Amino acid sequence: MRNIKVCIAYHGGAYHGFQRQKNAITVQQTIEEALAKILGEPVGINGCSRTDTGVHAREFYFNFLTGLPIPCDGLKAGMNALLPEDIAVLSCEEAEENFHARYCAKGKEYVYLVKNTPQRDVFLQKLALHYPKKLDEQSMGRAAKLFIGEHDFSAFCKAEAKAHLKSTVRTVYDFRVERNGNDVIFTVSGNGFLHNMVRIMVGTLLYINEGKRTEADLIRSLQTGERADAGKTISPCGLYLNKVYY
Amino acid sequence: MRNIKVCIAYHGGAYHGFQRQKNAITVQQTIEEALAKILGEPVGINGCSRTDTGVHAREFYFNFLTGLPIPCDGLKAGMNALLPEDIAVLSCEEAEENFHARYCAKGKEYVYLVKNTPQRDVFLQKLALHYPKKLDEQSMGRAAKLFIGEHDFSAFCKAEAKAHLKSTVRTVYDFRVERNGNDVIFTVSGNGFLHNMVRIMVGTLLYINEGKRTEADLIRSLQTGERADAGKTISPCGLYLNKVYY
Repeated sequence: MRNIKVCIAYHGGAYHGFQRQKNAITVQQTIEEALAKILGEPVGINGCSRTDTGVHAREFYFNFLTGLPIPCDGLKAGMNALLPEDIAVLSCEEAEENFHARYCAKGKEYVYLVKNTPQRDVFLQKLALHYPKKLDEQSMGRAAKLFIGEHDFSAFCKAEAKAHLKSTVRTVYDFRVERNGNDVIFTVSGNGFLHNMVRIMVGTLLYINEGKRTEADLIRSLQTGERADAGKTISPCGLYLNKVYY
Repeated sequence: MRNIKVCIAYHGGAYHGFQRQKNAITVQQTIEEALAKILGEPVGINGCSRTDTGVHAREFYFNFLTGLPIPCDGLKAGMNALLPEDIAVLSCEEAEENFHARYCAKGKEYVYLVKNTPQRDVFLQKLALHYPKKLDEQSMGRAAKLFIGEHDFSAFCKAEAKAHLKSTVRTVYDFRVERNGNDVIFTVSGNGFLHNMVRIMVGTLLYINEGKRTEADLIRSLQTGERADAGKTISPCGLYLNKVYY
């Protein structure tokens, strides 16, 4: 069997996340349907991540097995022809037989984009969080460094998701907050992320900016796992899966 | 009566153009409904232009009359609170009593945005035309200059729209084609534009780039009014009303 590794980008605005669901349109289902037309047989793909409803991906990997001899260039062109405009295949290549997009991922980088302007930008709806109040990227950047390292991120996980997890310990490799004009960009990398973890971490930094939380609250939340010490879960619209490390 | 002049921007993707229609959601209806809530009474607004389904506006003006004393800042804030994310009020001010957003407009500038990359950009769906083939902005820029001046633009008008027009003569002030990285930007200004005129003019320049039309065809189309000498009507997704001159 061939093992095919595919890199895609997608605009998450129209999808209930990546992973297949019974009663909602997802990216996985959309791709599996396109691939089944090309291959002439049903196919199951392994995604590198779930991603929430409305979250985007600039780089997302999946793999699938096939016995058919269609070249990778043909698979890429076929998928791009059949997929809707909000999903694009960036690359398609043969992988080693034991490659698995999810289990082989060593880490990921997420970007959260905030548009810091008094007036909303109508062309960025669903692509960035509009935040009209003053944002101090330097003080948020200092607080963001507190997340770096191995911690129990219980306080930064959706409550219903915790029951299914063996562990809520994760390692954050780096966390930067930078300004480019009116864009405030949060970039965080780590070996794995809990459900809603990036949205709650960025929400906490925004609360610290507003004075609704302090750095002491953040430190305590990492020690106690108390969800209430962290900030709110902000909108998925500014969140991008940016890189996957293998 | 006060005469209020309002400048808005909108993402046209979800609307059947600006102008109110019986069986489709338009920008005008959406704004009139928001304004009626603020004013507590029905209101009719005069838009500066129609714009087709899916066309965007970075700057679009309308005016309306009211006897109520709500200050302009309050009207602006109220509209921005009630309007959906894809419409934003940029400014709101008192105008002279004889100001009319459509009849007082002396001219307009449109921009057409083409993303000239082999691979589509999923984050620009509905915001730019994806064009994977080579584009020579310099030769298209030379051909674009042929549109400048007063001409009968019959060949660059949607057929069904012509019957309702007194004249198909318009003056194009300027027409530039520029490249900024992978963006090819068409900018055209004039005293008025026929239905689909910008989309057909840009479509003709793309046909000239592909060798499907020549500069001689373009010149002849301006003389004969033959729609067949011009190019096709391209997608509305890359079109922006950019400026309105008063």
